[in-house]
Amino acid sequence: MRAVERHPSFDSTFIRACRGLPVTHTPVWLMRQAGRYMSEYREMRARVSFLELCRSPDLVAETTVFAQERIGADAAIVFSDLLLVLEAMGLDLSYPKGGPRLSPPVRSASDVDQLEEVQARERLAYVYAGIRATRAALAETVPLIGFAGAPFTLAAYACEGGPSRSFVHTKSLMYRDPGAWSALMEKLVRGLIEYLCCQAEAGAQCLQIFDSWVGAVGPEDYRDFVAPHSTALINGVKAVHPDVPIIHFGTGTGQILEQIQAAGGDVIGVDYQTSFAQARSRLGDEQPVQGNLEPLVLYSSPEYVCERAQRVIDANAGRTGHIFNLGHGILPETPVDNVIRLIDYVHEATATSSS
Amino acid sequence: MRAVERHPSFDSTFIRACRGLPVTHTPVWLMRQAGRYMSEYREMRARVSFLELCRSPDLVAETTVFAQERIGADAAIVFSDLLLVLEAMGLDLSYPKGGPRLSPPVRSASDVDQLEEVQARERLAYVYAGIRATRAALAETVPLIGFAGAPFTLAAYACEGGPSRSFVHTKSLMYRDPGAWSALMEKLVRGLIEYLCCQAEAGAQCLQIFDSWVGAVGPEDYRDFVAPHSTALINGVKAVHPDVPIIHFGTGTGQILEQIQAAGGDVIGVDYQTSFAQARSRLGDEQPVQGNLEPLVLYSSPEYVCERAQRVIDANAGRTGHIFNLGHGILPETPVDNVIRLIDYVHEATATSSS
Repeated sequence: MRAVERHPSFDSTFIRACRGLPVTHTPVWLMRQAGRYMSEYREMRARVSFLELCRSPDLVAETTVFAQERIGADAAIVFSDLLLVLEAMGLDLSYPKGGPRLSPPVRSASDVDQLEEVQARERLAYVYAGIRATRAALAETVPLIGFAGAPFTLAAYACEGGPSRSFVHTKSLMYRDPGAWSALMEKLVRGLIEYLCCQAEAGAQCLQIFDSWVGAVGPEDYRDFVAPHSTALINGVKAVHPDVPIIHFGTGTGQILEQIQAAGGDVIGVDYQTSFAQARSRLGDEQPVQGNLEPLVLYSSPEYVCERAQRVIDANAGRTGHIFNLGHGILPETPVDNVIRLIDYVHEATATSSS
Repeated sequence: MRAVERHPSFDSTFIRACRGLPVTHTPVWLMRQAGRYMSEYREMRARVSFLELCRSPDLVAETTVFAQERIGADAAIVFSDLLLVLEAMGLDLSYPKGGPRLSPPVRSASDVDQLEEVQARERLAYVYAGIRATRAALAETVPLIGFAGAPFTLAAYACEGGPSRSFVHTKSLMYRDPGAWSALMEKLVRGLIEYLCCQAEAGAQCLQIFDSWVGAVGPEDYRDFVAPHSTALINGVKAVHPDVPIIHFGTGTGQILEQIQAAGGDVIGVDYQTSFAQARSRLGDEQPVQGNLEPLVLYSSPEYVCERAQRVIDANAGRTGHIFNLGHGILPETPVDNVIRLIDYVHEATATSSS
């Protein structure tokens, strides 16, 4: 267990909610809150590429802090990308139209062998520099979230070489060569533990693990091929930083929510396809939960946004340990005014009389 | 209620299982069983385009019957496409690389107004001709399945103009203009009732409704924007052809399985992401169910195929009313030998002593 200074934002509404403690209002942040839906982000991206932005600590700080302040979110999430870890393993990473590309794809035991160890401390040092710069620029009371892809999602990107609908190559490796699959997942987990620990040491008060593609596997495959590795990752980070809450989020996870909970994490992220009321009762009243507004609701009227936000609040039924978020990342054409209205609304609607 | 001659295949294992009756072995068929994974299909497609094939009754019969016989499936499904209905509504349909395209996309109330009624009896007459030709060529004891897309899935294709990940246009119409959304769904339902009834009259012994994209909506949106229309479709067909079993299938439906059951259908299709054991107990022992092998398992070894097939059989736990199928369509590079091994295995493993 490594000592990390207890930052003032550890007493924030957001971190308190991660621990299931009573709060004066439900904290809100939005996945991808610094992104294309903001004109300021688009202007920045007209000047620098996505990867240049990720690698420039000052621009990371500017982008991250601007978004948090603009929308009034209760937490900031460091501007970065899941796939930087795969680049650190020696894969070539690019962002052509149609989604990210990784090459060469990993499709056999020997491909797995040839994949380099992440060496997260050295190779991803620019991420920690971005976190330090962000932490310095962010209001002291606002917690900063670091993040990484879950081993399954990163393995799937590596196997497919980009986005996929059928996950042919991922599952082929899994089913045909379970030993190579495990070796791939273990290599990822080793790198990810170091990566997330370094993020905490650089100044992240919370860590989110994104298993964005885990909805592609059924419950048995999650149990046999995924969960042990997610658990190893979470336990590995927790052994070093027990104080830092971990949010464990995946999409398409309605059928494996209890398994995700069992795999670990202080907070379980709930996707928008899952009934929030059911998720809360399935996971137990004591389980802190994050979610789960349908992101497309933000494309409609402010009135409808508030109506749907209220439904999520109602589904939470006054339990502690609720972090309000979307059930998926915010989409590029979301009107900023609706985002601000959403966050204000959640704050007003959940404010206790003592606040 | 229209009289349809009771075909000999109404006493087949497949139709008996659709009704929940005892059978001598678990019947098997595979979604997209006539398709690209078969060299004979690829050779056919080297000569005629996909749409030409769909529109040629003789080629439809040849393709459909060949696949059923080659793999020994307990039912045939007419070779056709979900999107022909949208073409009949006046949209231009093409199949460029990257997925089907429909234009112009339907994005407003006036777009919905301009969409023509399907006029299924006239405009899709070639489908019924294909069914008649197939029925004539198929062994008398083998039932023939007709099918259509569910209203949501077709509406989503029409709104997006092709495949989508976020369903931005579909949900925008739904949330911004619920009246236009309903009008679109109702127009589809009117056409689909006629379309499925005509298929039954042409000789289909069973009808499957594919809600392939319904996993994109959460439980509340399914309830408010989808279920009433799926129910209207199923009830509309049942009012005319109460004898013809309807299979109601969607993907990504683990969270709305009970709602899909409530919406209607004699058999509920279960996707591969859902635990089959849980699905059977959630839906009740009496509910006939179809599913749900992970399609990618067929890319592995014959031994692993049998192992995973046995797990599905075990999860069914001897209940009547099980139709064995994949939990999604078969994929293009599936080895045919594994498919044949799968079907033989399910037949052997589930044969009762009386058979």
